[in-house]
Amino acid sequence: MRRLKMIISYDGTSFSGYQVQPGERTVQLEIEQVLTKMHKGTPVKIIASGRTDARVHATGQVIHFDTTLTIPIDSYMKALNVQLPRDIRVLACEEVASDFHARYSVSGKRYRYIWHFAAIQSPFRRHYTTETNGIVPNIELMREAAAYIVGEHDFSCFCAANTSVQDKVRTVHSLTFEIHGEELHMVIEGNGFLYNMVRIIAGTLWEVGTEKRTPQNVQKIIESMDRKTAGKTAPPHGLYLEKVYY
Amino acid sequence: MRRLKMIISYDGTSFSGYQVQPGERTVQLEIEQVLTKMHKGTPVKIIASGRTDARVHATGQVIHFDTTLTIPIDSYMKALNVQLPRDIRVLACEEVASDFHARYSVSGKRYRYIWHFAAIQSPFRRHYTTETNGIVPNIELMREAAAYIVGEHDFSCFCAANTSVQDKVRTVHSLTFEIHGEELHMVIEGNGFLYNMVRIIAGTLWEVGTEKRTPQNVQKIIESMDRKTAGKTAPPHGLYLEKVYY
Repeated sequence: MRRLKMIISYDGTSFSGYQVQPGERTVQLEIEQVLTKMHKGTPVKIIASGRTDARVHATGQVIHFDTTLTIPIDSYMKALNVQLPRDIRVLACEEVASDFHARYSVSGKRYRYIWHFAAIQSPFRRHYTTETNGIVPNIELMREAAAYIVGEHDFSCFCAANTSVQDKVRTVHSLTFEIHGEELHMVIEGNGFLYNMVRIIAGTLWEVGTEKRTPQNVQKIIESMDRKTAGKTAPPHGLYLEKVYY
Repeated sequence: MRRLKMIISYDGTSFSGYQVQPGERTVQLEIEQVLTKMHKGTPVKIIASGRTDARVHATGQVIHFDTTLTIPIDSYMKALNVQLPRDIRVLACEEVASDFHARYSVSGKRYRYIWHFAAIQSPFRRHYTTETNGIVPNIELMREAAAYIVGEHDFSCFCAANTSVQDKVRTVHSLTFEIHGEELHMVIEGNGFLYNMVRIIAGTLWEVGTEKRTPQNVQKIIESMDRKTAGKTAPPHGLYLEKVYY
């Protein structure tokens, strides 16, 4: 038995999220089905760094699983990519120690959130960016607000209300904005993220960029520890899980 | 009654091509359904610059139609975009003279064909580029071969065998290659294109770039006036109708 770690990418458009749910097409289900077939029917369970919601994308999700197959790593990856649907790709694969755990060993993550400014949304970007209907936000205000978020805080204000996690203290290492053509990218790194945290931060900073809130208001939101004081949860299809650190 | 000209863009992925076919989802059908609804049930027929095949994209297709509605042009365009499915967008709209014809008035067209070099195809580009499984062609050879195609020729060799067009003489004004990151773009302009002509040229020049044919062989293909001497028809999802000239 050996443990494999894989970096995977998926287009979240046609998935009901990462995690198996009865009757739904999920990323976990598709990968486990192929692996189980490769193991001649013996069920194989995979563990990911964390879930992603329906329509959320990944360019660097990480999974691990244990396998009895002894084929070389490169062949393993090729076999998986041949059998997986085209909206999931295995980008890298390596053998890891048996104490490596895709979820519990995580030391940090990087997410990207993309807005598209075109007045008329491109049909080609509709599943991959959040459209702004031509609105270009004030990015300097968004940067100013972001400074309040960076650091160690209790992020209860940026956590979906229906979560069961007790400890909501996390550290955001960096939160930056980049312009790429007609797109605004928000890139956020931290030691961990609460449920919907990146999307609520994106939605709140968007309200700052469009001058519905002041940058200083974000400091008050964090101090309130109350989800209701923060902005709307930004739509899922602008979000990418980009990198998981171990 | 006034005649409107519209520039439209569509993601060809979920269409059985541009033209109405019984029982199929097509671009023409979707637009005509919305226009007919806007005209309170009176059928509206649209005319395009030409058809595009299933899975072929357009960033600058042109259509025209006649309308009895007197609403301002901007409102017309907005009303259409609100009601159209998100994989079709109207990018521009103007009133034209009654003798303008989206098909018969065409003086030229520009197409783009995109290959993606990544060894492992991105899930996000799978519908929008033709994957090469990591193969990077010799672009200088492709440029050398392209020089034989530019100009006025009988292009019978680059025309799908099942076409009914008699006169197969066309002029290719330019045929260039551009590298964009991991992608190769072929951009071709001409006064008109035969059925499948761009995809057969793309497939043939790909064979030159991967050294299955010499550039000089392309001259022989043109002289043969025989489809069987040319290369394979390149897949539809790498192709974009980019601009129509009038």
